[in-house]
Amino acid sequence: MKRNDENLAFMLQYENVAWFDEGKVRVLDRRIYPSEIRFEECNTYQEVSQAIKDMVTQSAGPYTLCGMGMALAAYQCKDLPKEKQLEFLEEAASVISHSRPTTVNRMTQITQGCLAVQKKALEEGSSAVDAAFNRTLESLERRYGTMQIVAKHLVDLFPKDAVVMTQCFGETIVGCMAREIKNRGLNAKFFVAETRPYLQGSRLTASVLCDMGFSVTVITDNMPAWVMETKGVNVFTSAADTICMDGTVVNKIGTLQIARIAKAYGVPYFVTGIPDLDKKDRTAVVIEERDKNEVLSFRGMQVTMEGVDAFYPAFDITPPHLVSAVVTDKGVFAPYDLNRYLKQGVDVFY
Amino acid sequence: MKRNDENLAFMLQYENVAWFDEGKVRVLDRRIYPSEIRFEECNTYQEVSQAIKDMVTQSAGPYTLCGMGMALAAYQCKDLPKEKQLEFLEEAASVISHSRPTTVNRMTQITQGCLAVQKKALEEGSSAVDAAFNRTLESLERRYGTMQIVAKHLVDLFPKDAVVMTQCFGETIVGCMAREIKNRGLNAKFFVAETRPYLQGSRLTASVLCDMGFSVTVITDNMPAWVMETKGVNVFTSAADTICMDGTVVNKIGTLQIARIAKAYGVPYFVTGIPDLDKKDRTAVVIEERDKNEVLSFRGMQVTMEGVDAFYPAFDITPPHLVSAVVTDKGVFAPYDLNRYLKQGVDVFY
Repeated sequence: MKRNDENLAFMLQYENVAWFDEGKVRVLDRRIYPSEIRFEECNTYQEVSQAIKDMVTQSAGPYTLCGMGMALAAYQCKDLPKEKQLEFLEEAASVISHSRPTTVNRMTQITQGCLAVQKKALEEGSSAVDAAFNRTLESLERRYGTMQIVAKHLVDLFPKDAVVMTQCFGETIVGCMAREIKNRGLNAKFFVAETRPYLQGSRLTASVLCDMGFSVTVITDNMPAWVMETKGVNVFTSAADTICMDGTVVNKIGTLQIARIAKAYGVPYFVTGIPDLDKKDRTAVVIEERDKNEVLSFRGMQVTMEGVDAFYPAFDITPPHLVSAVVTDKGVFAPYDLNRYLKQGVDVFY
Repeated sequence: MKRNDENLAFMLQYENVAWFDEGKVRVLDRRIYPSEIRFEECNTYQEVSQAIKDMVTQSAGPYTLCGMGMALAAYQCKDLPKEKQLEFLEEAASVISHSRPTTVNRMTQITQGCLAVQKKALEEGSSAVDAAFNRTLESLERRYGTMQIVAKHLVDLFPKDAVVMTQCFGETIVGCMAREIKNRGLNAKFFVAETRPYLQGSRLTASVLCDMGFSVTVITDNMPAWVMETKGVNVFTSAADTICMDGTVVNKIGTLQIARIAKAYGVPYFVTGIPDLDKKDRTAVVIEERDKNEVLSFRGMQVTMEGVDAFYPAFDITPPHLVSAVVTDKGVFAPYDLNRYLKQGVDVFY
C-alpha cells in the first residue's frame, strides 16, 4: 500500500491519535486539547486500555490506539517463548477490545486483525511489533481513503450555500468533508454545539474547521433550536458510533435531540459512516454510562451542591425516521434501505 | 404589611439576592455559587447597574437588586438639596432600568415605584433611603405571596409521581413549588439541565431542590431528549422572563429546545409567571446577545481555538403552540386565552 503523506500529515496535525515508538505509545490528550498540548504515555497495553476507557482520545482515535496497543503488547512480550507471546497477545487483544462496552465489536475486529498478522510474523520469525504497527498505519490509510469517498457523497448533498450544524464530529470525516468543500470551491459555514461534558465540539470539531479556514460559530448545547430558527441552518450532519442495519443511529449524546429539532425545522439530517452489519437494531446496542462527576464538575471544579446526582450516558439512539440519509463509502442510502449496502459486498474497514 | 419570616429566611438562604446596609449594596455572586460564597459590593448605583449587566445575580434577583440600588442612590445623594436629590434619583432610576435590554419595562416599574415613595418621603422629610428599602422588601414579600399561589396552581397540574424536567428555574418559584410539593406530601423527582454557559441549572436550581430534600439529577443540555425517552419524564416546567399576551414565552436560552422536545415526547410544558400586558407578541421582544467569551470559555479558561466565533443569545422565544398551560397567580390559562387574565384585573407585581 502506498503511503499518502497528505493523509498522514493531516492525521498528525488534527488527530495525533497514537503513535508507538521505542516501547511506548504516546497519545495526544484530546480531553484538554487545544488549551494544552499534552501527550499521555502508555508503557503497557493495560495502560492503553485504560487510556481508551478514560477517553484520552475519542472519535476514530481509539481504533488507532487499539492497534498501536497491540504493537506495544508485542513489544512487552518479545523476550518470551513464541507460544507465551501468542498467549500474551491474545490476552492483550481481549483486554483492549473490552475497554469500552459500546465499541467491543469494532475493537475486536481490529485486535483480531492485528493478531492474525502478528501470528504470521511470529511463524515467519519477523517482528510482531512491526506487524501490528504497519497494519495500524495501513488501516489508517484505508480509513482516510474510505472517509474521503464518504465526504464526497456528503458534500454532494449540500446546498450551494451550506449552513451546517454539527456537534462533536469525528476529525477524520470532518477533515475529509472540509477538504472536499475547499477542493470544490464551495461556501459553507458551521454552527458547532459545544458537546458537554467533554466539549469535543468546541475543542476539536470547531478547531479543525477553523484551522482549515472556515467560518465556525460555537454554541452551547441548549441553542440548536434557536439557531435553526434564526440562522438559516440547512444541514445537520454527524458521524456515528454505530449505524444499525435498520437505520438506527447510535452516536454521541445530543445527536438524538438535534435530529428531533432538525426534523421540527425541516432541516435534513445526514449521518456519515459504514453500517454495522452485526447490529440489526437498537436491541443490539449497549449504551455506556460514564462517570457522573464529568457532569457535576468542569475540569475538576465541582459546579453543583454536594448531594446532587447526575446522569451521563455517552451516547443516544436516533431512530431511522429522524435520519434523512445514511452517507456511506458506497453512496447515499435511505436509512430503511441498508440491506442494499450489504448486497454490494463489504470491505474490511478497520 | 406583615413580614413573613419564612419567606425572608428562604430568600436569604437561597437567593441572598441583594441587601442595602450602611451605604453599600451587597449581592451574592450567583455566577460562582455554590462552589464559592462571595458577595459583590456596590458602592454606587452605577455599580449596581453594572452588577445587573454582569449577571452577578439573575432570575428574580435583579428586581430586588434594582430596588436596593434605588435605596443606595438615595444614600449617595442624601446631602444634596431636595431638588437635586430628586434629579439624582430620576437619573439613577433611568440608568438602573436600562441595565439589560430585555427587562427594561419590568425594571422601570420597580424604579418608578421606588421613585414615587422616595418623592413622598422627601416631601414629608422622612428618609428616601428607607422608603426604597422598605418598598423593596414589601415587593419581595408580595412576590413570594404571589409565587406561592402560582406554585399551588402548578403543583395541581402534576401527576401523582411527578418526574419533572427543568433547567435554570428561578429560585423563588422553584422554592415555592418545592415547599408546595412537600406540604402536600407528594413524590417528585427532578432532572435539571445544567444550562450553559452560566450553569444556573446545576449551580442554582439543582442546589435549591437538593437542599430541600428532593432527588435531583443534573444532565448536560444535550441530554433532555434522551432523558425524556428513557426516564419517564412527565412534566416540563420553567419560569419566563416575558409571557406575551399571545402566549409566546421568552425565557432562558434552551427553553424553546426543551419545549420542542417535550412536544415530541408528549410531555406537557407548563410555564409559570405573570403575563406581560405591555407585550403583545414576539415583535415586542428584544433578545439580548451577551459576551461570546462566555461560550468560548469556561470560568475564564478558553476551550476552543483562537479564531473560532461564538453566539450567545441570553433568551429564546417559544411559540404558544408548544406551551401546554400558563400558570399564573389567577389560575391556569391556555396560552391563547391570556386576555381573560387581563379581564380579571391586574395587581401591582413588582
